[in-house]
Amino acid sequence: MAALSEFDIIKQYFSFSGHGIQKSGGVLLGVGDDAAILPSSKTPIVIATDTLIEGVHFPKYFPPKHLASRALGVNISDFAAMGVIPTAMTMALSLTSSDPQWLAEFSKSLAQQCEYYGIALIGGDTTKSPCLSVSLTLLGNTHDEAGSTLRRSAAQDGDDVWVTGSLGKGAAALALLTETIASDEWPCDLAEKENLKESFYAPQPRLDFGVELLTFANAAIDISDGLLADAQHIAEQSQTQLSIMGDLLPLHSGLLSHADPDKIKQWVLSGGDDYELLFTAAPPMAEAIMDLSNKHQLPCHRIGTVKSGSGVKLLGNNWTSFKVEGYQHF
Amino acid sequence: MAALSEFDIIKQYFSFSGHGIQKSGGVLLGVGDDAAILPSSKTPIVIATDTLIEGVHFPKYFPPKHLASRALGVNISDFAAMGVIPTAMTMALSLTSSDPQWLAEFSKSLAQQCEYYGIALIGGDTTKSPCLSVSLTLLGNTHDEAGSTLRRSAAQDGDDVWVTGSLGKGAAALALLTETIASDEWPCDLAEKENLKESFYAPQPRLDFGVELLTFANAAIDISDGLLADAQHIAEQSQTQLSIMGDLLPLHSGLLSHADPDKIKQWVLSGGDDYELLFTAAPPMAEAIMDLSNKHQLPCHRIGTVKSGSGVKLLGNNWTSFKVEGYQHF
Repeated sequence: MAALSEFDIIKQYFSFSGHGIQKSGGVLLGVGDDAAILPSSKTPIVIATDTLIEGVHFPKYFPPKHLASRALGVNISDFAAMGVIPTAMTMALSLTSSDPQWLAEFSKSLAQQCEYYGIALIGGDTTKSPCLSVSLTLLGNTHDEAGSTLRRSAAQDGDDVWVTGSLGKGAAALALLTETIASDEWPCDLAEKENLKESFYAPQPRLDFGVELLTFANAAIDISDGLLADAQHIAEQSQTQLSIMGDLLPLHSGLLSHADPDKIKQWVLSGGDDYELLFTAAPPMAEAIMDLSNKHQLPCHRIGTVKSGSGVKLLGNNWTSFKVEGYQHF
Repeated sequence: MAALSEFDIIKQYFSFSGHGIQKSGGVLLGVGDDAAILPSSKTPIVIATDTLIEGVHFPKYFPPKHLASRALGVNISDFAAMGVIPTAMTMALSLTSSDPQWLAEFSKSLAQQCEYYGIALIGGDTTKSPCLSVSLTLLGNTHDEAGSTLRRSAAQDGDDVWVTGSLGKGAAALALLTETIASDEWPCDLAEKENLKESFYAPQPRLDFGVELLTFANAAIDISDGLLADAQHIAEQSQTQLSIMGDLLPLHSGLLSHADPDKIKQWVLSGGDDYELLFTAAPPMAEAIMDLSNKHQLPCHRIGTVKSGSGVKLLGNNWTSFKVEGYQHF
């Protein structure tokens, strides 16, 4: 089997575009030139870059179809946390070899995900590398000309603190995928295990919910570094304190059968990779938020309050001993 | 020395912005949130992504200040080839460790380059990785509302083929940096050697020239894959043939002292990494192009013609034996 050139790879596997962008005027110039061109825009332009590296963000021999769905899900989650719809992206793909089967599975899954979310792949760079990585740069537009988005810096004293979905699943799934766990230590049933793994393979960014949340919420962030680390980001940038009640945290049901409560707490508080939204909103917004929760069939839980002060305070008898820290890369 | 967290690194080293973007309305939201926000834009938006990986695009132990200038130069070169000024960028930086001295030198050089080119660093992702890499995504706007740019697909039958600057320096510099070369094989003097190395450390993208070239040229590409491979891109996308006269190629003066003419030819024709512009223009434009060349003190050479047909034809007694190929990653 002859090795594929960079140009062959781009032509054969990555010359597709999502349909969603057609809504906003189409791509003026896509994959194949020195740069891509998107139409002019009446609303401000939003950009986010996120990188996934083998052995750091996903295990070795991770199936390519899952890598594509995970890369896109993780990146879109940043947009969900801003309340912004992505329309286009560039991809920096670094490969250790040009394996046609790997490329076919990866690009098929990526094309499906792009189609689903209405994102056009407009350019990028495909290179050989000693390690496999995918870095996506997503582009989109704010909802209105004023550039309204949810921001980390917008939490107000007196706000409720909310979280979507359930917590701990990202870290628990990674443990399932990479560690040997005795069945008496964690007698998790098969369906729960599959559910956890699926949340790692294809994180479901809270995109439609995030866009509608714009009307009701003040600050928001997606939980990628871990609940406490991400709460800390909001506290710092909003110059407030986030007070969080441990007993109100929505644990993923698959975690409950684990024998070690400290491990559960660690996964929930600082495991990261949950890709849920942590947001703050004034108390009168609670009803509208619950309506939104019902509309999207996405559970939302009030887990604390915003106060004057700084940092994150974790309350509850069983929780206060936990050291507040997120995932640290270095 | 305590290890730095991802957040420390961003705060300490990468929370700077260039000044140029202020011209176009400023950055609405920069480094520090889930995504960055740029102002709305009356003109189409241009995006390009380029990745540099240790051991692939630059040698191991490459000085961080040179890595920053090279990464930015290489990326801006894509914009030069479109005739577009970049205004902002995101950076995916993958580090094997968090060495404060390395980070200080890298970020200082990056800030200087961003300042020089008027580019704001608006976001990105800093991660730990088994291998060092820098991937930049540059953003900018086309010169006019119609979205005029130089494109690979716009070469016309009868056009002259031109090239800026001199060729072969990218590959020759890499040889100087990574190979042991006997002095009788290549008695290159010290000043020439330094000049070659400098072109590798800090490629000078032909940005201002490229923007003014918009008025006169049809197709353009920057020479990153190698003269013949990049000529092939224009030929393919314009559905024409590029006929290139070997004897008219402007060789970098540092190459002339090399004892092996085949090595020189290889560097010039397929070495790549020259970051000059290869462009086509109608013959009546020659005078205007020479005026532009004088204005920018950038030598320009007519090296061939565009004809009906396909592919790249290399002419000249000493040149025809060369096999037409570019740098292949895989």
